[in-house]
Amino acid sequence: MSEMKKAIVLLSGGLDSATVVAMAQAEGYEVYALSFRYGQRHSVELEAAAALADHMKVAEHKTAELDLRLFGGSALTADIDVPKDELDHSEGEIPVTYVPARNTIFLSFALAYAEVVGAKDIFIGVNALDYSGYPDCRPEYIASFEAMANLATKAGVTEDERVRIQTPLIDLTKAQIAAEGTKLGVDYSVTISCYDPNERGEACGHCDSCLLRAKGFAEAGLDDPTRYQE
Amino acid sequence: MSEMKKAIVLLSGGLDSATVVAMAQAEGYEVYALSFRYGQRHSVELEAAAALADHMKVAEHKTAELDLRLFGGSALTADIDVPKDELDHSEGEIPVTYVPARNTIFLSFALAYAEVVGAKDIFIGVNALDYSGYPDCRPEYIASFEAMANLATKAGVTEDERVRIQTPLIDLTKAQIAAEGTKLGVDYSVTISCYDPNERGEACGHCDSCLLRAKGFAEAGLDDPTRYQE
Repeated sequence: MSEMKKAIVLLSGGLDSATVVAMAQAEGYEVYALSFRYGQRHSVELEAAAALADHMKVAEHKTAELDLRLFGGSALTADIDVPKDELDHSEGEIPVTYVPARNTIFLSFALAYAEVVGAKDIFIGVNALDYSGYPDCRPEYIASFEAMANLATKAGVTEDERVRIQTPLIDLTKAQIAAEGTKLGVDYSVTISCYDPNERGEACGHCDSCLLRAKGFAEAGLDDPTRYQE
Repeated sequence: MSEMKKAIVLLSGGLDSATVVAMAQAEGYEVYALSFRYGQRHSVELEAAAALADHMKVAEHKTAELDLRLFGGSALTADIDVPKDELDHSEGEIPVTYVPARNTIFLSFALAYAEVVGAKDIFIGVNALDYSGYPDCRPEYIASFEAMANLATKAGVTEDERVRIQTPLIDLTKAQIAAEGTKLGVDYSVTISCYDPNERGEACGHCDSCLLRAKGFAEAGLDDPTRYQE
């Protein structure tokens, strides 16, 4: 029996990354999940990530500790209010929830992890809704990271196989993501998407991320099992 | 009086990065120094970095905490012996002291820092001696990181000015680096280059890094003020 191909999957504990784990597994990958404790205000997402990793039987789950509050500059890590009941960006503008260079940092850690376990594929759940506002969610950014990654590592020097950054959600709407994950059996009750949950892990229902998620489930005609605050 | 242009400089506490700080300052940059506590065995280098930052009057010095031991895979972070009295790599081979994706991770943090303080220039002290062995010290790697960085950040979306990764040491020998730094007044007694120093911060004199440093000073006809173990 041949060894399973390995993939690193960035796992935040939200709807998108849970769906990506299921998609990678459906493609036959043995999943090495990677989460980050980066000073985010909503650390209940890490509990969701751990629960998902367990529930979805990934091969390994690591949580990297790094403190992006060191630099500040985002509503998710500094003392800036998370916008409520409105999308926090317009076309061409950058949301205040943008964390400087976050995906670059996350993918860099994934690259280190990939090199150590011998994975060639790194999955990240960026999607079309994100890249309207976040520069590091755009397809051209992902392609340039992949090019860099192949020069950065041992793989780039000594092996034929290239590192690939896989973004299976990139052209999907939230509705399509929720539909795909439901088809693959993802238990979305374990996920949390809220930027500003309470201590019990209940979603606020009013932030950008909650609004997008609710809209997605509604459009897909699915019930969202997210627990909301009263 | 116009505001000084800002630069992020990766500061390890060694000969190379100390020289880079001096070179950036000589070019008129206000230096924001960035060091990393990444699980390295030789953490005395962080004391050297702090002393250098103070001594060289940088505008700000931050130390990011991140644990690369999470993944292992290097003599500098895992329980693998540091080679002594021999260069630990041959042409085309990767040294055991290589840390997977380290420069990519370090530059990613520098990119976040640059974005927050409004710096367009990131200096890193990679040089010709390194890129014979480390894939992430090669000029083509640096160029690809720079291309990625300009797609990753707000700068890439909303401003004309490009992020630049500057590698002023890339074509210099250790002898040329030591000569240049000495000319600029760098106090090399504050630096430490050893991969395996003792608790008092004294260099072993026998690892790859010590051998290269000693050779550099000798070729430059300079005295190396490094403190060696008895």
